[in-house]
Amino acid sequence: MTRSRRRRAITTPKIIPGTSPGTLVADPKRGQPVVSLIAYSETKVTEEASIELEKIKPFLKKNNVVWVNVEGLGDAETIRQIGDMFGIHQLALEDVMTGHQRAKLEQYGDNYFLIAHMLELREFLLTEQICTYIGHGFIVTFQDGPLDCFEKVRERIRKKAGRIRSNGADYLAYALLDSIIDCYFPVLEKYGERLEDIEDEIIERCDRSTISKVHEVKRDLLTMRRAIWPLREAISSLLRDPSKLFAPETLIFMRDCADHTVQISDFIETFRELGADLMDVYLSNVSNRLGENMKLLTIITTICAPPTVVAAIYGMNFNPDVSKWNMPELNWEFGYPFALSLMVTLTILTSFILWSQGWRVNSENVRRPPH
Amino acid sequence: MTRSRRRRAITTPKIIPGTSPGTLVADPKRGQPVVSLIAYSETKVTEEASIELEKIKPFLKKNNVVWVNVEGLGDAETIRQIGDMFGIHQLALEDVMTGHQRAKLEQYGDNYFLIAHMLELREFLLTEQICTYIGHGFIVTFQDGPLDCFEKVRERIRKKAGRIRSNGADYLAYALLDSIIDCYFPVLEKYGERLEDIEDEIIERCDRSTISKVHEVKRDLLTMRRAIWPLREAISSLLRDPSKLFAPETLIFMRDCADHTVQISDFIETFRELGADLMDVYLSNVSNRLGENMKLLTIITTICAPPTVVAAIYGMNFNPDVSKWNMPELNWEFGYPFALSLMVTLTILTSFILWSQGWRVNSENVRRPPH
Amino acid sequence: MTRSRRRRAITTPKIIPGTSPGTLVADPKRGQPVVSLIAYSETKVTEEASIELEKIKPFLKKNNVVWVNVEGLGDAETIRQIGDMFGIHQLALEDVMTGHQRAKLEQYGDNYFLIAHMLELREFLLTEQICTYIGHGFIVTFQDGPLDCFEKVRERIRKKAGRIRSNGADYLAYALLDSIIDCYFPVLEKYGERLEDIEDEIIERCDRSTISKVHEVKRDLLTMRRAIWPLREAISSLLRDPSKLFAPETLIFMRDCADHTVQISDFIETFRELGADLMDVYLSNVSNRLGENMKLLTIITTICAPPTVVAAIYGMNFNPDVSKWNMPELNWEFGYPFALSLMVTLTILTSFILWSQGWRVNSENVRRPPH
Amino acid sequence: MTRSRRRRAITTPKIIPGTSPGTLVADPKRGQPVVSLIAYSETKVTEEASIELEKIKPFLKKNNVVWVNVEGLGDAETIRQIGDMFGIHQLALEDVMTGHQRAKLEQYGDNYFLIAHMLELREFLLTEQICTYIGHGFIVTFQDGPLDCFEKVRERIRKKAGRIRSNGADYLAYALLDSIIDCYFPVLEKYGERLEDIEDEIIERCDRSTISKVHEVKRDLLTMRRAIWPLREAISSLLRDPSKLFAPETLIFMRDCADHTVQISDFIETFRELGADLMDVYLSNVSNRLGENMKLLTIITTICAPPTVVAAIYGMNFNPDVSKWNMPELNWEFGYPFALSLMVTLTILTSFILWSQGWRVNSENVRRPPH
Amino acid sequence: MTRSRRRRAITTPKIIPGTSPGTLVADPKRGQPVVSLIAYSETKVTEEASIELEKIKPFLKKNNVVWVNVEGLGDAETIRQIGDMFGIHQLALEDVMTGHQRAKLEQYGDNYFLIAHMLELREFLLTEQICTYIGHGFIVTFQDGPLDCFEKVRERIRKKAGRIRSNGADYLAYALLDSIIDCYFPVLEKYGERLEDIEDEIIERCDRSTISKVHEVKRDLLTMRRAIWPLREAISSLLRDPSKLFAPETLIFMRDCADHTVQISDFIETFRELGADLMDVYLSNVSNRLGENMKLLTIITTICAPPTVVAAIYGMNFNPDVSKWNMPELNWEFGYPFALSLMVTLTILTSFILWSQGWRVNSENVRRPPH
Repeated sequence: MTRSRRRRAITTPKIIPGTSPGTLVADPKRGQPVVSLIAYSETKVTEEASIELEKIKPFLKKNNVVWVNVEGLGDAETIRQIGDMFGIHQLALEDVMTGHQRAKLEQYGDNYFLIAHMLELREFLLTEQICTYIGHGFIVTFQDGPLDCFEKVRERIRKKAGRIRSNGADYLAYALLDSIIDCYFPVLEKYGERLEDIEDEIIERCDRSTISKVHEVKRDLLTMRRAIWPLREAISSLLRDPSKLFAPETLIFMRDCADHTVQISDFIETFRELGADLMDVYLSNVSNRLGENMKLLTIITTICAPPTVVAAIYGMNFNPDVSKWNMPELNWEFGYPFALSLMVTLTILTSFILWSQGWRVNSENVRRPPH
Repeated sequence: MTRSRRRRAITTPKIIPGTSPGTLVADPKRGQPVVSLIAYSETKVTEEASIELEKIKPFLKKNNVVWVNVEGLGDAETIRQIGDMFGIHQLALEDVMTGHQRAKLEQYGDNYFLIAHMLELREFLLTEQICTYIGHGFIVTFQDGPLDCFEKVRERIRKKAGRIRSNGADYLAYALLDSIIDCYFPVLEKYGERLEDIEDEIIERCDRSTISKVHEVKRDLLTMRRAIWPLREAISSLLRDPSKLFAPETLIFMRDCADHTVQISDFIETFRELGADLMDVYLSNVSNRLGENMKLLTIITTICAPPTVVAAIYGMNFNPDVSKWNMPELNWEFGYPFALSLMVTLTILTSFILWSQGWRVNSENVRRPPH
Repeated sequence: MTRSRRRRAITTPKIIPGTSPGTLVADPKRGQPVVSLIAYSETKVTEEASIELEKIKPFLKKNNVVWVNVEGLGDAETIRQIGDMFGIHQLALEDVMTGHQRAKLEQYGDNYFLIAHMLELREFLLTEQICTYIGHGFIVTFQDGPLDCFEKVRERIRKKAGRIRSNGADYLAYALLDSIIDCYFPVLEKYGERLEDIEDEIIERCDRSTISKVHEVKRDLLTMRRAIWPLREAISSLLRDPSKLFAPETLIFMRDCADHTVQISDFIETFRELGADLMDVYLSNVSNRLGENMKLLTIITTICAPPTVVAAIYGMNFNPDVSKWNMPELNWEFGYPFALSLMVTLTILTSFILWSQGWRVNSENVRRPPH
Repeated sequence: MTRSRRRRAITTPKIIPGTSPGTLVADPKRGQPVVSLIAYSETKVTEEASIELEKIKPFLKKNNVVWVNVEGLGDAETIRQIGDMFGIHQLALEDVMTGHQRAKLEQYGDNYFLIAHMLELREFLLTEQICTYIGHGFIVTFQDGPLDCFEKVRERIRKKAGRIRSNGADYLAYALLDSIIDCYFPVLEKYGERLEDIEDEIIERCDRSTISKVHEVKRDLLTMRRAIWPLREAISSLLRDPSKLFAPETLIFMRDCADHTVQISDFIETFRELGADLMDVYLSNVSNRLGENMKLLTIITTICAPPTVVAAIYGMNFNPDVSKWNMPELNWEFGYPFALSLMVTLTILTSFILWSQGWRVNSENVRRPPH
Repeated sequence: MTRSRRRRAITTPKIIPGTSPGTLVADPKRGQPVVSLIAYSETKVTEEASIELEKIKPFLKKNNVVWVNVEGLGDAETIRQIGDMFGIHQLALEDVMTGHQRAKLEQYGDNYFLIAHMLELREFLLTEQICTYIGHGFIVTFQDGPLDCFEKVRERIRKKAGRIRSNGADYLAYALLDSIIDCYFPVLEKYGERLEDIEDEIIERCDRSTISKVHEVKRDLLTMRRAIWPLREAISSLLRDPSKLFAPETLIFMRDCADHTVQISDFIETFRELGADLMDVYLSNVSNRLGENMKLLTIITTICAPPTVVAAIYGMNFNPDVSKWNMPELNWEFGYPFALSLMVTLTILTSFILWSQGWRVNSENVRRPPH
């Protein structure tokens, strides 16, 4: 499971070297395409949960905005037909099918092709590529399926909430992009909380799992950064030189989107720096604790050395009977108490010397487990 | 409490994905809005500590400058009414209500919407978002409450100090921005002092709390950087391409503001680099002390080894009576003195060898506690 | 073999200081040049696996596109003749012969000279310089030999797959460049997998070879970065200011190429950051394990110290017969059980003190080998 | 003293939030202003070591260039009068009084206001802010006092050395700026030497003070960088868009100044990288020495273990009289020599095993103290 | 010698603050200037190994190109005369005399003044400043002497090799610059080999000298970077905005030069990153070996502890005659074999526990010395 998580996080696109550009290769595992449609103008909404391709055309003429959503990319033929119907360039279709693309906004004539990534933090960080083709009066979105952040936009269309019904496809494009970007904030918030938890953990106790947690957060932030930075560039290049597809009022809203991407990448950078700082604090704590242990070991060794040497000396078997120079202490009346007090005295002396020079097991170490 | 501190420092804005742009969600905890007003021209000042919304209009015509301050953002309806009255764009209002925005300066027609952050270093670093809408002849400021750095500006208006009364709303905008930015300097000064204290601490003694302090300073500087960098960009983009709202003389003052933001971010970068340097010094000190302890342990073990081995040898129970080869030393007349002097000799020899090769507990270690 | 791998990875070009510009020095080891040719227009294809130089000319007039491929660069004279035939500047020819050049796209009049690098990850990372001279109606490619990623392009020409036959030399140039760049993706994917494997390895166990693996991946990514970054710049400068050699439709395809280089360099940066992160995790794990070992050593030393001291004391040879003060315990009825229980009690006490202060060999250490 | 040094190095300007812009606050400790004047044209020089303000005016008309130098900034009123006399903007005057400003070059109309920093490395690094107001035919300089690098310029004016007397105020401005910038080179040279000394020190022996020295050099270089970078930007922006105040010939000289600032900041970056490298080398040396100590400890423990165990075994008191299985060695004729040779054999064996596997105290360790 | 090496590597220019710009100070140690001359046109070459200054003039009129080379800069007067003869600006002459300048290309009217650095890697890295003044029809070069990379250019002039004789002074300037830049490649190659050797060394064994070698390579690369980066900027600024001094064909060659500088700085950056990576690998290896040693120490201590305690117990002197509780084992028939087997059993048990939990001295450690 850990493995699959990482696989999802940073996946390179599966490109087969040497194939013709625009070759569409479908992975049947991605599910049969289900095409749904919402067509609306100021006054009316039509919604089709599943529609056949040939029935789409009539909607295009009768409505202000037609939004075709394709869920499931497991069939190349269907995708190609949709591409033909809306005049989507084959390179754009190839990007749709390949997946794991970098976020981008490309202009094809007056139309735009946008790749962005939805995020959700379930047990692990999920990302999904969402491709949007924006034309005059229509929008086509392609997605794989599991994640969905468009439901609330559909609600707003149905309920005529806000200004969405009275605007064109450009505003819908903004609304979709905005709802994708807004998904990043709850995820960011959770990573912020995680970093706080890790910070508490590092200060209180630090076992080996802590560093893995920091690493995981940093890796996921790397994934988010890879998703948001190119989007940020894409939107600001749109703002610098917009085509006539976008009404000036919509561009003000787009500016808000750009602002959000800047904010998100700002947070990501800050969080990554925080993560790096936490790694430093962790490493210095580990070193510190190693030093504490070493100190304790040194103290114990030092304190035990003198009594051991004394006891070893009086354990020697020199024969006191042979000469008065041979261990006369053994036959002294107070020889044993003398030896014992010598041991105690030496121990106290050594301890005092250590203590007087600052070799204390610091109180912090007593209250809190050193490892 | 530590936790709440961190929460305040780096908080992501609470955005509910999928809501219509411009949706205003109020958190009642932020307090009922209190609207105050100062209207002035060269000759007269009117001040209302609390004013009803409908009474604001007449002031706009009769005064050069009207400054409406809204304190407390707990009621969406009031904010919306104020927005309508002054023609503030709904996206700007949303930013006001959401809070925790990135600093920015946006142009709406000829008017400007500015987000900045006030700072104060009490027990921990406090930040507060302050939104300013600058129009022709009026300024609206929105703030949450706890922090206030505008009182001195009010004083200057009342007392006709400096040139504030003889200038328009653009100069007031400058004065407000300047007073926000000037708040950063005392905070910076305190962090500079903290870094100096930490530097002294690292050189004299270094316990585990030191690294947490460095980390806290670095984290708070990160917060300040997030507040000042976008402001710096915003002001310099205003200077590059100012609207006619700003008189040329005011722009000279604005250039001074820009200069201050550059200076502040310079200091922040310098302090962050200093903090990183201190972390390196700390780590190398910890390693050094570990080495000292290790050296002491090695010295003690080495010095104690020979006498222990000698004493253990003469503690063996081989029977000297059986053969003359069996521990004849035990029955020598000076066997015991011989053994003792052997021990002493070996210890001195070992010590001398260690000493001659530089294994000294260095004097520094004697004078100062190694941990 | 490790050595040769590195030699290949980062090789500086062999330049003999002071030679005239455009001096062609051939290394016979690089093999005799074999010139092959594919000439095609919409309707017909001619292919020559090996052709003499003087027979090339007639093809140039009769076909839309002539692609001359030179494999093996071991003979300067042949290269010079080809250069003369197609008007290739002597500096470009020098770059062809020197090898190990930086990727670049240079304009000579209306024609272009492109240097790029093919990649393949066999036992180790192989790179090969491929030089392409693009003119009106013809393309000349120079390569050393071992790697080949053009075979599929030849297939497409033969089978009239895609639009390659109906386009000019500019589209062929794109197709070749595209097939070079596409080679990077499978290599990237493998490095991504390696990093995952290393991540698993670091968490489960970490021996000394792990760090070498991280280092190798980082070094190879450095090589890839050196290959792709200048290519990225080259292509985007072509897009900014294209000559009339490139049809507008081809430029859309070139934009896709540029997009791929951006994507690849993005992945490389991400992987390098991941590698750096993994190195940090590894280092902190090593430190952690050192701490674990140190803890175990301290525990064993501490627990064994008291019984050893007690046994040493009662091993002393003071004569109990001389005085009642001399080790009366030796003659106590329960002296030995007393001594044994003293040892056990002290051991339990010490263990308990350690345990109560958190000195536990943590369970993680039991389940998993600490080194 | 260490403290005061740091205070000087990185000091934030004392700004009182909320004061009117242009408020001049004087710190009497900075000394009463002493105004001196040098007025000169091609043919004559007048010098006044101390002049009253009202007597300055007449000089302005009669001379090509008037240089007014104000030393001591402890009186706001004098500064204001000088400001009024030369038409210096109040914001510039505020910068003069506040001190600790970022270097900058601001244009006020045709005139320029320049802030730069003089440096001197006495016992510690001293910096002093020097403000220069450059107008048509006059220059006003403001300085605090202790440092002075203008004396040689005065000499050149008096002695008519070089072309200074035959040029206008713009050339004097250049000469002053040049003499400020030239002060950086000797300081840089000393830091270069310090880094070399530290490098020698790290290789030969490394005690704890070394790392503090590296830290100090890095911190002072940070201070220098903060002084020179903005100056570099300021001068190059002047060169890009010069006002008519500067004659084209003077601009060639200014280009030389710009070149020097680039050179200085280059050196600073190089030195900072060198410092960081040295910190790495130091850390790896400390680790290495820790490893050496650890190795020695392990060798001693390993070598001493077998003889200690053997001696302990033959020190056991089993009664050989009870049974022939109980320590018969004690009564062997060569029991003791056997035991001794067992010890020696085991010690040699252990030593040989360690030695054969590379456990050598390396020669380097013998010649040089390991700590 | 180590010291002088470093001195050479990063030397700050000796600037005496406050001197007039253009003051020429000569260091007699730099040798008396020897002026040589090569004058040539398409058809003839004149060469003078040593020429008096007044004899230079006639050559200027009669030849297409005159190249005056000044070797030895120990006499200011000669340099000034040459400067006057060719109209070289005094600031350029000052740069010639001061030495240790940053590489640059400055335009004086139509003429150019170029500073570059020759490199050679003998025992240590040598650099030498070479100044070139390029005018219409003449070139003046100033150099100190020891290094020379122009000999091959002279050869080409004499032998009429390549196109050098048929082109003007601009092409000669290119040829000289090219021969300077080409000197960098062999040096780079050697550093590449050194890094490979260090990599092998780090993997096989790593003693303390390794890290010094990495440091030295990194420091020398820093020196090379300081030499090549500004040259890169200088040449590309020339290409962006060339004066009419340079013929368009020469500019194509200059582009090749620019390309080489880019390539060299690319290699330098790559090598520096490799060096930093190697430092990380080294550090982690040192940590790893420390851990190995610690493990071995722990294993030995743990394995020896039980037999020592057992032996110590049976070495106690409790009197078995007093009571049956006092060490009855001593009088058991198989007491001694029992004690021995107890020791062996405990040792095997401890070893097994350690082994079963992964405490193995890993095979790698056996084959290869751990330090």
